[in-house]
Amino acid sequence: MFTGLSAFPLTPLRDDRVDEQAFTGLVERLATTEVDSITALGSTGSYAYLTPVERARVAQLAVEHAGSTPVFVGVGGLRTSHVLAHVDAAAEAGAAGVLLAPMTYQALTADDVFELFRTVTEHTALPVIVYDNPGTTHFTFSTDLYARIGALPGIASVKIPGVPRDPEEARAHVSAIRAVLPAHVTIGVSGDAFGAAGLNAGCDAWYTAVGGTIPDPMLTITRAAQHGRPAEAVAESERLAPLWHLFTEFGGSLRVTAALAEHLGLVPERSLPLPIQGLSAEQRARVVAVIEELALA
Amino acid sequence: MFTGLSAFPLTPLRDDRVDEQAFTGLVERLATTEVDSITALGSTGSYAYLTPVERARVAQLAVEHAGSTPVFVGVGGLRTSHVLAHVDAAAEAGAAGVLLAPMTYQALTADDVFELFRTVTEHTALPVIVYDNPGTTHFTFSTDLYARIGALPGIASVKIPGVPRDPEEARAHVSAIRAVLPAHVTIGVSGDAFGAAGLNAGCDAWYTAVGGTIPDPMLTITRAAQHGRPAEAVAESERLAPLWHLFTEFGGSLRVTAALAEHLGLVPERSLPLPIQGLSAEQRARVVAVIEELALA
Repeated sequence: MFTGLSAFPLTPLRDDRVDEQAFTGLVERLATTEVDSITALGSTGSYAYLTPVERARVAQLAVEHAGSTPVFVGVGGLRTSHVLAHVDAAAEAGAAGVLLAPMTYQALTADDVFELFRTVTEHTALPVIVYDNPGTTHFTFSTDLYARIGALPGIASVKIPGVPRDPEEARAHVSAIRAVLPAHVTIGVSGDAFGAAGLNAGCDAWYTAVGGTIPDPMLTITRAAQHGRPAEAVAESERLAPLWHLFTEFGGSLRVTAALAEHLGLVPERSLPLPIQGLSAEQRARVVAVIEELALA
Repeated sequence: MFTGLSAFPLTPLRDDRVDEQAFTGLVERLATTEVDSITALGSTGSYAYLTPVERARVAQLAVEHAGSTPVFVGVGGLRTSHVLAHVDAAAEAGAAGVLLAPMTYQALTADDVFELFRTVTEHTALPVIVYDNPGTTHFTFSTDLYARIGALPGIASVKIPGVPRDPEEARAHVSAIRAVLPAHVTIGVSGDAFGAAGLNAGCDAWYTAVGGTIPDPMLTITRAAQHGRPAEAVAESERLAPLWHLFTEFGGSLRVTAALAEHLGLVPERSLPLPIQGLSAEQRARVVAVIEELALA
């Protein structure tokens, strides 16, 4: 289940409240494609900004509207007891797994993070995806920590940040992680610009942010990589280079993905949680130009 | 009011609940010293880990037990609407001011942070302390942003991170910030090892983490610097060097301060919010040795 394309929908806000209609629309849209799973309340789903009540509701809506597509739910939080409450809410909603990033305010040690995962895996029967996202958590996993956490019963997958550009290096990087994980633990790449490279390097899954809004090109990449056509995956990813460039230029995928979804009418204007204002008018015009250039609409 | 020594008490937990008795004990202890203000729910007060209900209660207890000492309350949060709710709770508790750090999960732009402060200062009549703490927020203020935010009505003070070691450089650094701020906006240094250097370099205040647990040496430093005896301030700070070294070695002041308070019996064992486990037994023994060496008990 923790393989292939996992699509991360936005959790759009309207006037500081979750726009449930827009959210379920995104989920239904994904469920009608062939994505392998939907991850609600990922970083792209703004989990860190939502109240426990909002998160429980979003998890519930995601499962209700995903049809037969498995739904994973982000359960990260700054305090262990809050994480456990999010896990319980995800379980009650019918999630097929949970995604856990070690959020930080005070920096965490490797032992702190290990104990967090140990506590969560002891608490729940749900499979757990280890969410390594140093750009937002400012916590860096070592390969040794992957090994310690990967050995916990209940760990299903590790979501790693981007892989090296060079295919040889990428393969060596993924192999080094694979070597320390039990065979049943899958490895998923994230950082959308690295999807093709990660899958071609041997990752089992692609946890894709923008794929939650425009799944089709990401499915093209995923299926090509899965079915032994690495060059085709790379070609499609290279075609999308103008989009990846915007991610780099505008400080990550979130603001660009939100602008994209807003332009496509999938979510309301200014759908991100304040204080995140989203892109400027000028930046949005650049996004629209790329949407047209790449025929993403 | 935003001058001199502002002491930051811990918010101790016991079995994952705020230990109200221990917290009020810390506040009362500070109120009986001559600290100029108490800042509840700073980073040292674990504001980022507590629920809105816990934070409102802690703010209330701080004001109730601080006697005539003004109480500032940390109101940071990841979402603007949550920050406003914390501000309202602080006002209701009777806080004399609020301390606002731009917490991040997704990185914020300067405009995002400016709008956050604009929204808060428009929302409340309480004076606002700008909390620049890149170690926890991963947001870096520019001098230009200090200027833009400092010009907002309602901004009372800017809490800056440590200053350069060299006294000349420190003075130039503080002067450069002073130059862009209105005259009524004070500058307070933080990073406990930099208290003496910051005050001697012209800072009006010292926002001190460890001073919330052991105020006396920090008051010695503050009064010496305030009363034209900079060498005395430096000497006392240098005497405390073994403590500052532990902060560096053990990843910041929080875990060391908590271990110190735990050893002194001021707060229960394991008083930090999980997943922060606090120091190991070996590290605690080092803290105890420094307590004895410096006669901090």
